[in-house]
Amino acid sequence: MAITPPSITLRWQSGTNGHLTLLDQTRLPGEFLEIDCHTVEDVWQAIQRLAVRGAPAIGCAAGYGVCLAEPNLEATLNACDYLATSRPTAVNLFWALERMRQVANDAANSAPDELAQRLLAEALAIHEEDRQMCSDIGRHGADLLAALPEGAGILTHCNAGALATGGEGTALSVLFELARRGRKPHVWVDETRPLLQGARLTAWELQQRGIDCTLICDSMAAQVMREGRVQAVVTGADRIAANGDAANKIGTYSVATLARAHDIPFYIAAPTSTFDLSLSSGDEIPIEERAAEEITQGFGTATAPAGIATYNPAFDVTPAGLIAGIVTERGVIQPVSRDTIAQLTEDSSDERCDPQRR
Amino acid sequence: MAITPPSITLRWQSGTNGHLTLLDQTRLPGEFLEIDCHTVEDVWQAIQRLAVRGAPAIGCAAGYGVCLAEPNLEATLNACDYLATSRPTAVNLFWALERMRQVANDAANSAPDELAQRLLAEALAIHEEDRQMCSDIGRHGADLLAALPEGAGILTHCNAGALATGGEGTALSVLFELARRGRKPHVWVDETRPLLQGARLTAWELQQRGIDCTLICDSMAAQVMREGRVQAVVTGADRIAANGDAANKIGTYSVATLARAHDIPFYIAAPTSTFDLSLSSGDEIPIEERAAEEITQGFGTATAPAGIATYNPAFDVTPAGLIAGIVTERGVIQPVSRDTIAQLTEDSSDERCDPQRR
Repeated sequence: MAITPPSITLRWQSGTNGHLTLLDQTRLPGEFLEIDCHTVEDVWQAIQRLAVRGAPAIGCAAGYGVCLAEPNLEATLNACDYLATSRPTAVNLFWALERMRQVANDAANSAPDELAQRLLAEALAIHEEDRQMCSDIGRHGADLLAALPEGAGILTHCNAGALATGGEGTALSVLFELARRGRKPHVWVDETRPLLQGARLTAWELQQRGIDCTLICDSMAAQVMREGRVQAVVTGADRIAANGDAANKIGTYSVATLARAHDIPFYIAAPTSTFDLSLSSGDEIPIEERAAEEITQGFGTATAPAGIATYNPAFDVTPAGLIAGIVTERGVIQPVSRDTIAQLTEDSSDERCDPQRR
Repeated sequence: MAITPPSITLRWQSGTNGHLTLLDQTRLPGEFLEIDCHTVEDVWQAIQRLAVRGAPAIGCAAGYGVCLAEPNLEATLNACDYLATSRPTAVNLFWALERMRQVANDAANSAPDELAQRLLAEALAIHEEDRQMCSDIGRHGADLLAALPEGAGILTHCNAGALATGGEGTALSVLFELARRGRKPHVWVDETRPLLQGARLTAWELQQRGIDCTLICDSMAAQVMREGRVQAVVTGADRIAANGDAANKIGTYSVATLARAHDIPFYIAAPTSTFDLSLSSGDEIPIEERAAEEITQGFGTATAPAGIATYNPAFDVTPAGLIAGIVTERGVIQPVSRDTIAQLTEDSSDERCDPQRR
């Protein structure tokens, strides 16, 4: 049996009769708690309640989740349909499930054991490709930012790190690679309300690796930019339309707008599996709205009067015009336009199915 | 003895041997707890730990605080010096203390009883003028926004309401007056990290008065603007330089920048006592930095890894160029420039000392 790529975020245990082990990210940074998912429902719940989050990691988790169904075509396809309902915005989820569905259909007449093996091999391939993708994004992104002075300030929002992927991350992979190259980046970490993925996860990852960073509230990013302490912004993305409009964690559009106002380049780092070319523009990206309690009871304490109305979109869409470049595993899309996106995604469209060729 | 103006925020109890009663705003919205201040030190603590906050309310509290010193010149002047160290940014604090110092010096040869009476009369006058100022700001601001359609969206940041003043507030006074005029404003309330004055205080004040509002995280303001749901932004200010650069709660500069990017007018509502004409520009305004724990332990829970570096400026400065108008008790400064500010503040410079003339 192939071996699960090393990852703190998730790993498959013990072959075709195994299970998925996930780091419960809702407990970080206070507690490093791993949970075992033995059923498709367990994985659906883990995705829905953000125990595992980050578009690429959700894709990996969903792939493994399908392997927890009974090894027959019907149960497998049902698992795919069911897992697709866990979260609406990240396209990698649907992309990974489509790959699993394809494998199931191709192996429709196989014995249960063989189906199970082929599904697990595909889930492991999705994970391994994700790890490789992170590494390639890190390399291309560090090349892109090579001209920044040593110690340059780079601001990021939410968590697009190892915890968001099956590898080293997307936006953070770029920063990790810069650090490995001795460029000593100083990372400004938006805490990222309401769920504080920046404070809880990104700050934790950077601290673990000894990378210089400063945690701020989201409302402070503009001030830090005004003080001249940010030379670039890099975030991940959950879905990118054919014209380059990019959905990412709520607050990303704010950061991109503020970066523009301060003449700071705003970059996105995301795998090509994040592109949804069926969508002409970001207007078509469905935006998940989450519960009011994330705002009003965010920390186990009532921080707002009972019964107050809230608006809690989990994502926003940054228009392509604000994005200086998109760092993918295949290279940097720059400038960002319908044409440059089509070119990069078409040129190597067959690579997706054959990771060996990369 | 004159009677304290009605205020939920603070009131003087029982004449020259009395004490100051404050609403402890750190407990809102969970608890409506009043605390009694019997010493100058009590008032200093209350200001420093934000039990009372908001530039005009701090000025009122400081005035009363001076009345808690021994009624002699030395103790009174010492109290003024001491209270001035409680918070560095809000200029109304220094302005109120200067008035108290003046009264003390004028009454240097008076008997203790007379000194005490004159100091208390001045503190009550500061409070009463503040109440009147709020009312006048509300009127001028509602006139300014009269052209907005019924139900227009107005975004505010932090709390510039009754809780921030001795009256009905500055920014919120404008909204209260619009509501009284039947204009049905819909208020978008930034929660205002780290201390959540928007979620805890502004949302509470609006809810108490039955004004339609929606609470959002600070990072969502840009998205709400992009959706076309904000027609104006109104905030308070803590200190305004001679050129119109305005210090206010951290995140205000972010909101002003985002408003400009969405062609939404950004207004400040503040009394003329907020102007510090000794400062040529906002670069000279001292910005208070507060403890890291406000970010990392903001809700009684660790929301970031231990030992992480933070940056926690309590205020930022919005450059005059982003401010469409400043609503004062004497009228609206529009456009905002060194000249228009000088004109409004000079024209009626003697009014400050004679509230009867208003």
